[in-house]
Amino acid sequence: MKRTKAVDCLGKIKEKVSLKGWVANIRDHGQLFFIDFRDWSGIIQVVVNAPEGSQLHRLVSSLRKEWVVEIRGKVVKRTNKMVNSELETGKIEIQAEEVIVINKSKAIPFPLDNDGKKIDESLRLKYRFLDLRRQRLAKIMKLKHKYILAVRNWMDRNGFTEIITPLLTSTSPEGARDFIIPSRIHKGKFFVLPQAPQQFKQLLMVGGVDRYFQIAPCARDEDPRADRHAGVFYQIDMEMSFPSIDEIFQTAEKLMKDTYKSVAGGKRLVNYPFPRISYKEAMEKYGSDKPDIRFELELQEMVNLIKDKSELRIFNQAESIRLIVIPKGVEFSKKDIDNLERKAKELGAKGLAYAKVLNGSLESGISKFFEKALKQKIVKISRAKEGDLLLIMADSKKMTSKVMGQIRKVLAQKLDLVNDKELSFLWVTGFPFYEINEEGELDFGHNPFSMPKGGIKNLEEKQALEIESYQYDLVLNGYELASGSIRNHQPETLVKAFEKVGYGRKEVLEKFGGMYEAFQYGAPPHGGWAIGIDRLLMLLLDEDNIRDIYAFPKNSNGVDLLMNAPSPVGKIQLKETGIKLAKVKNAKKKGK
Amino acid sequence: MKRTKAVDCLGKIKEKVSLKGWVANIRDHGQLFFIDFRDWSGIIQVVVNAPEGSQLHRLVSSLRKEWVVEIRGKVVKRTNKMVNSELETGKIEIQAEEVIVINKSKAIPFPLDNDGKKIDESLRLKYRFLDLRRQRLAKIMKLKHKYILAVRNWMDRNGFTEIITPLLTSTSPEGARDFIIPSRIHKGKFFVLPQAPQQFKQLLMVGGVDRYFQIAPCARDEDPRADRHAGVFYQIDMEMSFPSIDEIFQTAEKLMKDTYKSVAGGKRLVNYPFPRISYKEAMEKYGSDKPDIRFELELQEMVNLIKDKSELRIFNQAESIRLIVIPKGVEFSKKDIDNLERKAKELGAKGLAYAKVLNGSLESGISKFFEKALKQKIVKISRAKEGDLLLIMADSKKMTSKVMGQIRKVLAQKLDLVNDKELSFLWVTGFPFYEINEEGELDFGHNPFSMPKGGIKNLEEKQALEIESYQYDLVLNGYELASGSIRNHQPETLVKAFEKVGYGRKEVLEKFGGMYEAFQYGAPPHGGWAIGIDRLLMLLLDEDNIRDIYAFPKNSNGVDLLMNAPSPVGKIQLKETGIKLAKVKNAKKKGK
Repeated sequence: MKRTKAVDCLGKIKEKVSLKGWVANIRDHGQLFFIDFRDWSGIIQVVVNAPEGSQLHRLVSSLRKEWVVEIRGKVVKRTNKMVNSELETGKIEIQAEEVIVINKSKAIPFPLDNDGKKIDESLRLKYRFLDLRRQRLAKIMKLKHKYILAVRNWMDRNGFTEIITPLLTSTSPEGARDFIIPSRIHKGKFFVLPQAPQQFKQLLMVGGVDRYFQIAPCARDEDPRADRHAGVFYQIDMEMSFPSIDEIFQTAEKLMKDTYKSVAGGKRLVNYPFPRISYKEAMEKYGSDKPDIRFELELQEMVNLIKDKSELRIFNQAESIRLIVIPKGVEFSKKDIDNLERKAKELGAKGLAYAKVLNGSLESGISKFFEKALKQKIVKISRAKEGDLLLIMADSKKMTSKVMGQIRKVLAQKLDLVNDKELSFLWVTGFPFYEINEEGELDFGHNPFSMPKGGIKNLEEKQALEIESYQYDLVLNGYELASGSIRNHQPETLVKAFEKVGYGRKEVLEKFGGMYEAFQYGAPPHGGWAIGIDRLLMLLLDEDNIRDIYAFPKNSNGVDLLMNAPSPVGKIQLKETGIKLAKVKNAKKKGK
Repeated sequence: MKRTKAVDCLGKIKEKVSLKGWVANIRDHGQLFFIDFRDWSGIIQVVVNAPEGSQLHRLVSSLRKEWVVEIRGKVVKRTNKMVNSELETGKIEIQAEEVIVINKSKAIPFPLDNDGKKIDESLRLKYRFLDLRRQRLAKIMKLKHKYILAVRNWMDRNGFTEIITPLLTSTSPEGARDFIIPSRIHKGKFFVLPQAPQQFKQLLMVGGVDRYFQIAPCARDEDPRADRHAGVFYQIDMEMSFPSIDEIFQTAEKLMKDTYKSVAGGKRLVNYPFPRISYKEAMEKYGSDKPDIRFELELQEMVNLIKDKSELRIFNQAESIRLIVIPKGVEFSKKDIDNLERKAKELGAKGLAYAKVLNGSLESGISKFFEKALKQKIVKISRAKEGDLLLIMADSKKMTSKVMGQIRKVLAQKLDLVNDKELSFLWVTGFPFYEINEEGELDFGHNPFSMPKGGIKNLEEKQALEIESYQYDLVLNGYELASGSIRNHQPETLVKAFEKVGYGRKEVLEKFGGMYEAFQYGAPPHGGWAIGIDRLLMLLLDEDNIRDIYAFPKNSNGVDLLMNAPSPVGKIQLKETGIKLAKVKNAKKKGK
């Protein structure tokens, strides 16, 4: 008898069917048993009428959760009263005629009939083969597949060719550590896993490929971070030749617009085409280069207005005085304000001042330090309205950005300004080409293969930190989703760009010789972007744990608890690949 | 002005267009220049009428091959006489009005206007970014993309979910060496790249995934071989739960039938549904477990008929006497037959006998050693016809299989029996579960996770070499294309199967603990296959070099000549990952 999937029974009312799958749950009502039967399509209720003492009764009594069974029976409509609206198949059930045990199961270590979020994650990962039976996880896997396929078909329809680039390659400066792989055939040498197909996609452009894309694995040996799957994650990677910046942006915009509904029909795209904002303006208005613009609460810089206008030393010494207007904020209690100040201090602020907008001026809080004229000016310039509350903070620009950017997000949550149904994309452009890194050295701000604005001339003549790049980020609901740029396709500009962060020409040629050489042979102007799939799916599917986007994730410490990876390898394997383990401690000196 | 692709000009006759791409060739006819202009879509002829002394003339005179240009001009029909039928755009050309140089190119190291097969491959690989501009390579990349996308959509339409499995995992016994990756965070431990997602796809079945597929990278640290891309290659990997063997076969059959035309419209599928043959019968009839059945020339075993019926010692000692009937073979010259014998000897035969079928009996060659009755019996049993030629070889069964299997293929070429337009698939089933490996030890014949026929009972009771597996290969035109099996989903059967090749229970649990554990929790019966994409595409696209199926292949020695991989890594990277290079020679002892 041909197998029918649970959900397909909806189209087979009154027919006889055979189902194969799992006992999700079983309830014993004497001679009536109710089985929640589960397969990959979903769950359906099976009713078994088994007179006590019958063989069927004995068999069904013995069933336990997660046993594998075949159910043969008839699809029937439930009476209106018995409809279960929470179940896709809730209007029907199976009247079982035969129950066959295909395989048994040990008692399961955790329940599978909830979303699993409260279960110890280590346990869930160790038993991932069970966890995947959970409806939430199964749904993610199905939608992830549907979404990526929709992306592939969209890219194809729009003239892009998917090209697979190598997994075993050489080093690339994406800013993270490489995973290295000793070569057995060429001892002493190593392959590395690609941190991104950056160089390959640029070489494809030189190779005449017009529009390339790939669902590309990116391997980065990073310390654990919450927003990226440990080890390997995936990007929608795209590159096009002879592009205008508008074409590059439109590709992402249309792709996002045309595909999100395949998995997130309940969401709504606001702001289309996606707005663009400069890095500078984003930092000014939102204190962040990845602002969530589903709500306003913009930061306002008031340093020119307020500095030296009062006796507050902290204000008079400040590089920046940022202000947020909270509409109707006078309703905030003292405790509310204290909580905000505590949050600000946690983030590094020395304090967080406030003032209420009342009677056309400022009252309470910090207002007593300001003269009347200043108070009125602040109200006017900030466009605050009667009954609003002002939050004010003074510090370095970097610190007011950081703290007030966060306070803005805290306020949005508190005021319930965030609409979960909205997808609000935003381009951030004009990033600095260079920045000072954590070691205090000049370093690339973003992708070193971006074109610096003004090209080699600016590299030679301008202050490094003043050079902007043709680099852009795509932000979705406050998360950095994608990064891209118009690339630097001129070999001498490339060498010069690297020289400024301390690479010699020889070193550049050693590391990126393939690119440098390629750019001599008719390289077309080109550019593109890469969109992080995990983060995108999390936002589309309202998931909050990046590991749940993967069938078999590493845990937050980079370990696969199911497959026990990483694990020790044998001496023979080490010897064959020409490596030894470094001793963690010095061996004890032998006496004589 | 919006860019138009070369081939899209076909729909824009009399329109003004802007093309951006490369100068594939340029011919100077005085004031008339003919440019073969190339972009990713194809090639189009551009005619530039540039009066001598004009600025345009100076510019166009300076153009060299592979410069990047923009051409602005008008699309015009060619006169009938000037149509170039070898070019997709051969009925039109561009009358250039403006030529803009976008980028220059150094002189290219090899021509790009041929198929490139005669050019030194090392050079082609070093300059792969140029080689990809070659029309043959560009076509492969485009069709590979189209084909894989067609496969993905087919799988989706047929209820399969693509699930990405980890790249960083632990060891798996696929019979090749693992690539190992030292863990920086967990020093002394290693990840390995998956040789195939075998364990993961089985775990997905346990996880309730009904029908899984993946275009899966498989990484194997093998010594160079001609039929597999070095390092990493790709498979269409599939697994389904609760399958019948027919469902598994039909999935591959329908997939192949429904997708090949998207890239190989000129080919024809013969034999559908695909025929099935047992391993034993394949070895008997074709001397091969991957026979090409586009032609007959079957081997016939004559040992029972011929042995001890003559005074030929070599025949009387033989385990096997194999015969091939060559239709109308009496026309073969002595030299033809000598060549075949030489080939047989190269393959290890002691000799290759022949006899002509004439006058209802055998004449010449070996026939003089046979009595009349025997000769007539041989003719009758072999169903040879008047004018046929018999080739006969005696040796061990293994040797006659090997040699006569090859001779069969040589004959097919010589007799022109192979139709290149035919795709002839064949299932080979019933492989032995175990075999004796090259070290003379009992080993798995194929996939160790296959179900042995008769299950644990046969493992306990039968001679190991007599146990068959639920294992099947899919053969296309004489090449092994896919391998699959019904899996062993019973934990104790799994342990037992491994025990017989020398793994202790502890070792099995150490290596495949995840699988062993998973099978305790309601594992469904399951099975699947994996189809090698490279080989399939080679056969569909009539390509003969597996490296050309990849955009950036390793050379036959496993080296990426363009990216210079593998390459040495720095001391810091070694230290961070907790490994040292083993010294190739012992360090000299320091005197003292």
